[in-house]
Amino acid sequence: MKKAVVLLSGGLDSTTVMAIAMSEGFNVYSLSFSYGQRHSIELDASKRVANAMGARDHLVMNIDLSSFGGSALTSDMDVPKQRAEQDMVASGIPVTYVPARNTIFLSFALAWAEVLGAQDIFIGVNAVDYSGYPDCRPEYVAAFEKMANLATKAGVEGAEKIRIRTPLINLTKAEIIKKGIELGVDYAMTHSCYDPSPKGVACGECDSCALRKKGFEEVGVKDPWA
Amino acid sequence: MKKAVVLLSGGLDSTTVMAIAMSEGFNVYSLSFSYGQRHSIELDASKRVANAMGARDHLVMNIDLSSFGGSALTSDMDVPKQRAEQDMVASGIPVTYVPARNTIFLSFALAWAEVLGAQDIFIGVNAVDYSGYPDCRPEYVAAFEKMANLATKAGVEGAEKIRIRTPLINLTKAEIIKKGIELGVDYAMTHSCYDPSPKGVACGECDSCALRKKGFEEVGVKDPWA
Repeated sequence: MKKAVVLLSGGLDSTTVMAIAMSEGFNVYSLSFSYGQRHSIELDASKRVANAMGARDHLVMNIDLSSFGGSALTSDMDVPKQRAEQDMVASGIPVTYVPARNTIFLSFALAWAEVLGAQDIFIGVNAVDYSGYPDCRPEYVAAFEKMANLATKAGVEGAEKIRIRTPLINLTKAEIIKKGIELGVDYAMTHSCYDPSPKGVACGECDSCALRKKGFEEVGVKDPWA
Repeated sequence: MKKAVVLLSGGLDSTTVMAIAMSEGFNVYSLSFSYGQRHSIELDASKRVANAMGARDHLVMNIDLSSFGGSALTSDMDVPKQRAEQDMVASGIPVTYVPARNTIFLSFALAWAEVLGAQDIFIGVNAVDYSGYPDCRPEYVAAFEKMANLATKAGVEGAEKIRIRTPLINLTKAEIIKKGIELGVDYAMTHSCYDPSPKGVACGECDSCALRKKGFEEVGVKDPWA
């Protein structure tokens, strides 16, 4: 069976991506990061999802992005709230942007893919209901893929090429949720909030909570996690 | 003063690159990695170089590439010896290649550059006296730079662009050493061996030792570190 590396945060999007990769027949190797984020709840969620969905292997890489600073997700800056209601979600780059995070995540995935002999790397980026992050756009993903094929053995030996797979990139949050429900994803396992309480209760007001709420409302089903 | 991030291993090449960046008037922020390599001697060397040459800041990121495996530099595979004498240095990708290493290193440098507001990232890759690593070629560097400018704030705000600076890329080892000597680099501080003894004595036989030895011989000066 062919192998794929899936970047898995344990959130709604990456969990759906993992289900899509499995539905295509891949043996999935899921990769998560402890990167200095303010809470470890997403690491618990990613382990839960990897186990429940049958990942072949699940790795958590420890990387301390907080030593660079520059983001509300890895420092003590405040996470902005109620931006969705003010129609500000897509206006400019918010402080929850973590500099070069997707590039770092994809680079580690590339290393693992090369060692495993996997050609496919899945990432749940989304250019529709997104929060204004530059590293979620299709032109960024295409540039990363091109670079990846020059960076590795794929580029010099005429070997099979690396593919960066972004099955959610043009879907709305509601379409993502519908797709996941079709594939049998149990969204109760997943976690989306940028700023949960110490016990893991979602704040309900950050961009991520707001987009999730709106998505489930559009689909017309109850969020099993809310 | 303008800022630059310099990837610094404490080896001959990256130390020369740091001297070049400083000669261009940059405030240098040097970045090293503890990545599961078999010895920490290069980390000691990089701290020594950063201090001696006056880096504004020096960060060591801990990333455990050994959990992926796939390289003699991060596992217990044997480091090949006497390849240079057999004229095998440039034949194919050797086991000392660490999958996607330069991509991972440059990605972290990109994150730091974005937080610092630095446009310039220096890396000591070299396409002449190289060991057959795909991520040392000019076309790889160009692709990374293009991706970097789409990944970050540089790409969406019409801001100043990120530049990946590779001043050694077309130089022979002898030319690199000459350049460094002109700039006053003390090569006694630097370290090059892939497989040193526990006390830090170079093996003298790996690709890295062989290229360094040949370089100093061509310049006609004694290697102060040998």
